[in-house]
Amino acid sequence: MISGSSLTPELLQAMYGEQAKLCTSPNEQLTLVFSQHRAFDLVELEQLLEAVGWSRRPVRRVRKALDHSLLRVGLWRHDARIPRLVGFARCTGDGVLEATIWDVAVHPLYQGAGLGKQLMDYILDCLRALGTERATLFADPGVLPFYQRLGWDLEPGGHRCGFWYAN
Amino acid sequence: MISGSSLTPELLQAMYGEQAKLCTSPNEQLTLVFSQHRAFDLVELEQLLEAVGWSRRPVRRVRKALDHSLLRVGLWRHDARIPRLVGFARCTGDGVLEATIWDVAVHPLYQGAGLGKQLMDYILDCLRALGTERATLFADPGVLPFYQRLGWDLEPGGHRCGFWYAN
Repeated sequence: MISGSSLTPELLQAMYGEQAKLCTSPNEQLTLVFSQHRAFDLVELEQLLEAVGWSRRPVRRVRKALDHSLLRVGLWRHDARIPRLVGFARCTGDGVLEATIWDVAVHPLYQGAGLGKQLMDYILDCLRALGTERATLFADPGVLPFYQRLGWDLEPGGHRCGFWYAN
Repeated sequence: MISGSSLTPELLQAMYGEQAKLCTSPNEQLTLVFSQHRAFDLVELEQLLEAVGWSRRPVRRVRKALDHSLLRVGLWRHDARIPRLVGFARCTGDGVLEATIWDVAVHPLYQGAGLGKQLMDYILDCLRALGTERATLFADPGVLPFYQRLGWDLEPGGHRCGFWYAN
């Protein structure tokens, strides 16, 4: 449902690119858009991730990581002049057999309204469209219920996730 | 230690590419080489993965997946005419923040001699050289002891791995 800020299909595509999609909004005043192509301000992105509790990473490394990701999705609060980034997720992977989803975040002020679910649905639709067979992710303890509610198979058949750090 | 098949540094590079490295062999008759560049016969690769118990995947999809991987490592039994693939692993990732290791396999006839450990060490050295901060993997229940022995942090702090399938 398009709210008062009059986002036509032409403007949607011009500002947010091909495959942009409106996100169902909890608030008539709020137009929310999923975009795979609108460029990120990396400082704004790191602020979003910090708002959900993660440490900041060097901007240069984030830029390189985003450039080498399979998929990048921003959830934008639409504004005709300055859209604001309120959600994000990205995938790495080979685009065929495996994709791993990272950095899933919805700004705390926008949580609790089903936007995380819509973000995950949007990403999985993108992966289906790419022809990817399987997606994986690593869930922090605090968000296990979120992924379980969305139907993710957590730790199927005794699989464990393993981590290694370079330093 | 170079065995009777006389693998000179020049031949090593010509057959196995830059960054090729001898793998310590359990058997004087056996020269083993890690390579990031020697081309795979995809049927031979799928036979190796099937030998360790995995289902075969369509060759066309495997080719695309390999082309879009961050890193591909073959462990080859050296022969001046026809080297044989006896081990394999690959990574997907952004090359900076995250890398995920997939398809780690050592042929059953070559297991039990520490080759899996050398394979993992080689991959992690490659990732360090790329500047990747962290590596992740999903461990089948049967190989948890293997990764634990290598010092991997399995399921740290209550993280769970999540899986989703497209079909």
